Amino acid sequence: MATQHPLHRLFKPQHVALLGVSRDTDKAGYKFLRALLDAGFSGQISLLGRQAGELEGHTIHTDAKDQPADIDVAFNLLGPAQTLAVLEAAAARGAAFAVVFTAGFAEMGEEGARLQADMVRACNAHGMRIVGPNCMGLFNLPWGLNLTEITPLPAGKVAFVSQSGNVAVTLWDQARKHDLGFSCFVGFGNQADIPMHEYIDYLGQDDDTRVIAIYLEGLRPGSGDRFFEICSRVSRIKPIVVLKGGRASAGRRAAESHTASLSSAERVYCALFEEAGIVEVTQMEHLLPVAEALMRCPPMTGDDVAIVGSGGGHSTVCTDEVESVGLKVPEFPVELVDRLSGLLPSWAPKKNPVDMTGAFINDPSLFSSLTELVMTMCPSLDAAVNYGLYGLWKEGRLGKDSPHDYVSAAPLLGALQAKLGKPIVFYTPYADRSHPSFTAMRESGVPCFDSIASIGVALAALRQRGRFLARAGEPLPRRAEPARPTVADAASRDYATEVGAYALLAGYDVKLPVVLTADSPEAAAEASERIGYPAVVKAILPGVAHKSDLGGVRTGLGDARAVQDAARGISASVAQAPGAHTLQGFTVTRDLGRRRELIVGVRRDVSLVSLGIVGLGGVLAEALDDVAVVLLPATPARVARALARLTSARAWGEFRGEPAVPPGPLADLLNQLNAALCSDPAIESVECNPVMIVGRDLIPVDAAIALNDKEPT
Amino acid sequence: MATQHPLHRLFKPQHVALLGVSRDTDKAGYKFLRALLDAGFSGQISLLGRQAGELEGHTIHTDAKDQPADIDVAFNLLGPAQTLAVLEAAAARGAAFAVVFTAGFAEMGEEGARLQADMVRACNAHGMRIVGPNCMGLFNLPWGLNLTEITPLPAGKVAFVSQSGNVAVTLWDQARKHDLGFSCFVGFGNQADIPMHEYIDYLGQDDDTRVIAIYLEGLRPGSGDRFFEICSRVSRIKPIVVLKGGRASAGRRAAESHTASLSSAERVYCALFEEAGIVEVTQMEHLLPVAEALMRCPPMTGDDVAIVGSGGGHSTVCTDEVESVGLKVPEFPVELVDRLSGLLPSWAPKKNPVDMTGAFINDPSLFSSLTELVMTMCPSLDAAVNYGLYGLWKEGRLGKDSPHDYVSAAPLLGALQAKLGKPIVFYTPYADRSHPSFTAMRESGVPCFDSIASIGVALAALRQRGRFLARAGEPLPRRAEPARPTVADAASRDYATEVGAYALLAGYDVKLPVVLTADSPEAAAEASERIGYPAVVKAILPGVAHKSDLGGVRTGLGDARAVQDAARGISASVAQAPGAHTLQGFTVTRDLGRRRELIVGVRRDVSLVSLGIVGLGGVLAEALDDVAVVLLPATPARVARALARLTSARAWGEFRGEPAVPPGPLADLLNQLNAALCSDPAIESVECNPVMIVGRDLIPVDAAIALNDKEPT
Repeated sequence: MATQHPLHRLFKPQHVALLGVSRDTDKAGYKFLRALLDAGFSGQISLLGRQAGELEGHTIHTDAKDQPADIDVAFNLLGPAQTLAVLEAAAARGAAFAVVFTAGFAEMGEEGARLQADMVRACNAHGMRIVGPNCMGLFNLPWGLNLTEITPLPAGKVAFVSQSGNVAVTLWDQARKHDLGFSCFVGFGNQADIPMHEYIDYLGQDDDTRVIAIYLEGLRPGSGDRFFEICSRVSRIKPIVVLKGGRASAGRRAAESHTASLSSAERVYCALFEEAGIVEVTQMEHLLPVAEALMRCPPMTGDDVAIVGSGGGHSTVCTDEVESVGLKVPEFPVELVDRLSGLLPSWAPKKNPVDMTGAFINDPSLFSSLTELVMTMCPSLDAAVNYGLYGLWKEGRLGKDSPHDYVSAAPLLGALQAKLGKPIVFYTPYADRSHPSFTAMRESGVPCFDSIASIGVALAALRQRGRFLARAGEPLPRRAEPARPTVADAASRDYATEVGAYALLAGYDVKLPVVLTADSPEAAAEASERIGYPAVVKAILPGVAHKSDLGGVRTGLGDARAVQDAARGISASVAQAPGAHTLQGFTVTRDLGRRRELIVGVRRDVSLVSLGIVGLGGVLAEALDDVAVVLLPATPARVARALARLTSARAWGEFRGEPAVPPGPLADLLNQLNAALCSDPAIESVECNPVMIVGRDLIPVDAAIALNDKEPT
Repeated sequence: MATQHPLHRLFKPQHVALLGVSRDTDKAGYKFLRALLDAGFSGQISLLGRQAGELEGHTIHTDAKDQPADIDVAFNLLGPAQTLAVLEAAAARGAAFAVVFTAGFAEMGEEGARLQADMVRACNAHGMRIVGPNCMGLFNLPWGLNLTEITPLPAGKVAFVSQSGNVAVTLWDQARKHDLGFSCFVGFGNQADIPMHEYIDYLGQDDDTRVIAIYLEGLRPGSGDRFFEICSRVSRIKPIVVLKGGRASAGRRAAESHTASLSSAERVYCALFEEAGIVEVTQMEHLLPVAEALMRCPPMTGDDVAIVGSGGGHSTVCTDEVESVGLKVPEFPVELVDRLSGLLPSWAPKKNPVDMTGAFINDPSLFSSLTELVMTMCPSLDAAVNYGLYGLWKEGRLGKDSPHDYVSAAPLLGALQAKLGKPIVFYTPYADRSHPSFTAMRESGVPCFDSIASIGVALAALRQRGRFLARAGEPLPRRAEPARPTVADAASRDYATEVGAYALLAGYDVKLPVVLTADSPEAAAEASERIGYPAVVKAILPGVAHKSDLGGVRTGLGDARAVQDAARGISASVAQAPGAHTLQGFTVTRDLGRRRELIVGVRRDVSLVSLGIVGLGGVLAEALDDVAVVLLPATPARVARALARLTSARAWGEFRGEPAVPPGPLADLLNQLNAALCSDPAIESVECNPVMIVGRDLIPVDAAIALNDKEPT
């Protein structure tokens, strides 16, 4: 017998207890029972309530200690004050899981957080694990299990894991527009005990689930590495799509007061999602269209899209949308345009997009036959978009001689998609209401969307999935055990200056430029004579992040006299600058001239042990704030993907005669910086800005270490 | 009597002729008549068809010459081959306007373009003007005029001007979701004769129109300056919103084959729209929500938004959406949070966003009362968002003691908006279907949206309108008469090198750095002794755009020997570079060091006489492609707005101790470059890259002139 998943009894319980039932049919304490019965639950049901007796044929216990011993899932509706004692009693009698609907825990502040921690500790001590608290409930419709108050629910193949209940209610309502339904749902709320990735792990092996959708406000602190491992594995088997709430500053405040989520920065999630093969959407309205496309369509293995439909404006806007997500609408070859000319009126555009104008009125199967012609004659195309006033234009009336009606024409598109192994997606403005032709199209495998924006996000998702599956064989790099902190050395370290930072990095094999120090302008000139020209002189200023703002950096110095003058000038500038600064001397290095400059760094994070960053460096780095996260350990492939996420991506490829930024050495540098970071728990971050690109070498020409506020231990 | 608008007879005709009617009720030739009758047209109707007789009580003429003489609008359904002769006959008998539904003209290629030009010329000769061809028709519902084949149409206060028919059909269908309707519509298709801005001009003075929506693929070549003037005037009176189709490369190809539109680059339209006070949306699904908000709500005069509603996930996602469009959701002061604490459960978040949790079930007027409290206690807030499972949650059932139902609570929000003079917008996922409470809310003035994304785009539009109205008193700078081309001089000009470009610019008062030329490395060293160090030496290479790619630029040179060596090095590099290049000597200038670098230029355009560009300059300019268009003549305000449109906007304000880029001198530079451009019709563009920012001075340190392929005349 195969081993059961650790959450098996949660999703497929034989025995459910409802704690806090009521005879009042308007109250939640009744509605949850009603929903469970409506779902057709065939296992045992135990009830706990204030008044003894029976409810819908089930005995109401009034004392938690009277409950049966073999409860799989105890669903808790009681107030926060009663919850701990009742759940502990259930746990003591062997209940495996509690789903805590009740709010009033960590999302309320310190007192609630203490109550939450006590509850988890008490229940875990008896081996019971907790979903929530402050959550919407859970369902597994194929199992006849519904632990939410909503009934009936649309059944189908989408699993939804949500930190928010009202987002879930919204999706259950909107799913009808997509002819979609749900297999399983978990509201994980404050995720006090079971972290979100365990649900993903379960759903990965659930045969009734074909795609997993997530609404996430924040991972549990420290759970990012495990989340990444599990999702990387599951997304190789089935698609995952996520909406991340709390992306900007006030949004993060909203998430914190909603589900007590302390969130990493958006770009950390962005890297985690891309690397784990999770498709991210940024609008709630995109979650279902993307889930639909990922569920129904094959992935896209290239960037080229054919657009075939009816209506010039829709055609133009569809093309804009496809291009706006980074895909291409290539012009068709002449032979194909000629073939189309034989089939369509002379005034119909045919170069891609193809506009059949009103011709579909006399045969709606033109959508599939023209699409088949186009995709067959251009095998390099990777997907097709169909669009038009389909289905309900003129109340669905077609020409008298049409060989098809809309309902019979629709499945031809699904059959074509299956034959081609390439996605086809459809847009019609009427798809916001139900119609048998739209349902027939969707059931045959072709998503039918009511917005052109959905076409863009759906194709982008299918392309991202195609890219991910193409590299799914890439081995997952293992994070090395963190180096044992060499705290003994740490006491003697100088973290406050560039010179000290260089000294630390040198111990971790980072290739550094020759840097000489000098305690006077004369000594600086002597140093530059040894190093050569043009030279750079910088002030040594402990704790100053931007030396150049104080006049502490002079570049392009052509001879010894210029160096000496520059060092004197620096002394004068620093002395005149506002604030008290201790000038501890000068560094002298070669000036590498004007080059592309990167910022490269590593830092600790609330979700991950540590992470790398790469981005646009130099004087504009802060203004442009164009930085991407690299998961550690860095690999050339991870670095290349991070560089591609940057707005400035084009600057890091081959560019005006300079070679592409080499991802291998950049990965090495990140891993070396990470080793330095891990050598001392007091270090919060290590950052090199700028790192200059000289051929295939990456040369840090400044470095800084920031400390966290924890005492080194 | 007030002067009638030149398009008065088009929109308010007394006499309409339908050319090409049919007795077959399935055919367009009948449907248009039906639609006109259904609309309640009270004027005279004349018909032209193949078979004589009567149709719906109106005589069918079979010969165009038999038509009455006082036709205001002739609506043409005939095929392209017959159109010219019939329209010319109508024009000869005094018809004022023709609306040409017929396709098969310029959108088909050269032959169609000739036919179109002939038609316009023939009709114009008799004083008749043409709408279209290749257009959807026209309506003015308050006048009882419908010249489209769709009936009935939703009547209301939105005017729609569209280059596409199927986009119009889509909006007419979707308007029911917003309880919106239309006053006037014009499909302008190929805009062979009447340019789009004339319709805008008419609708600006139409009392039945409160907001103007536009779908545009391209302005008529050369009409941009006039379009700008008219829209700037109209948008001071009523809001205008536009969706621009054909934004990317294949999208532009689609537009060209759809309506023969030759389009300027997206960023030209972006500048035109912002400067004219037109709100641009980038998705078709945003056109109606934004039109609705602009029509119903007052503008936003600041950036701060209060969010008050029900449901944690919606709350987080709403906040993300508001922040993603650049607005703020500031944390509330303690006093307000305390007041809210007395009104809401302890677990309800109250800091902004405010989540009333399920409390509205017992009183849906909580939305308005809490919003009023918040907006009154924080008068610095500029708008409010309400959100939640409103209206149809649990089939609209509320608590027994609720003082309001959803329908009676809804107008309280409209009254509050009117009292505050600040916009309120609402989101509920159920708003995609009709419900009396949503209608009541909208009729009271508060938009009720079915997507959270609509909240973001609507508020962004209201903020943009607020900003525009705040500067509506700013005088419109008049474009100076183009300087008379000084072609006589032009023959002796050198456009191929930086030295030649500098010589031209010097004649138009551009402040230039000292540039010495040298014909040998030794002469370069002598020149640098006069100019000072560090120095830059550049190759003079006629026609080479990127000298540095050939090794033709050396910077940071510290003494005469370094300059001489650099010049020798340049000679060697250029000699070794692939391709044949003529090294015509060297320029020597001072090295201004590492500074912020702009690109500043002017060029001719298909829509505008000329335009300016500003953007991120230097070595990364091409990779980052961050450039904004400035309308000419440049003014400091126009320049400041263009800089704010850049991704790199933050880099051009005060930044790390450097002053903000001065918009005044930047405007002067653009106007000087434009004078140089206009001095010779052979010049296509003048570009300075980089322009270095030295205090309040802008110093071009390179310049290039590109020629168009027209022969100088």
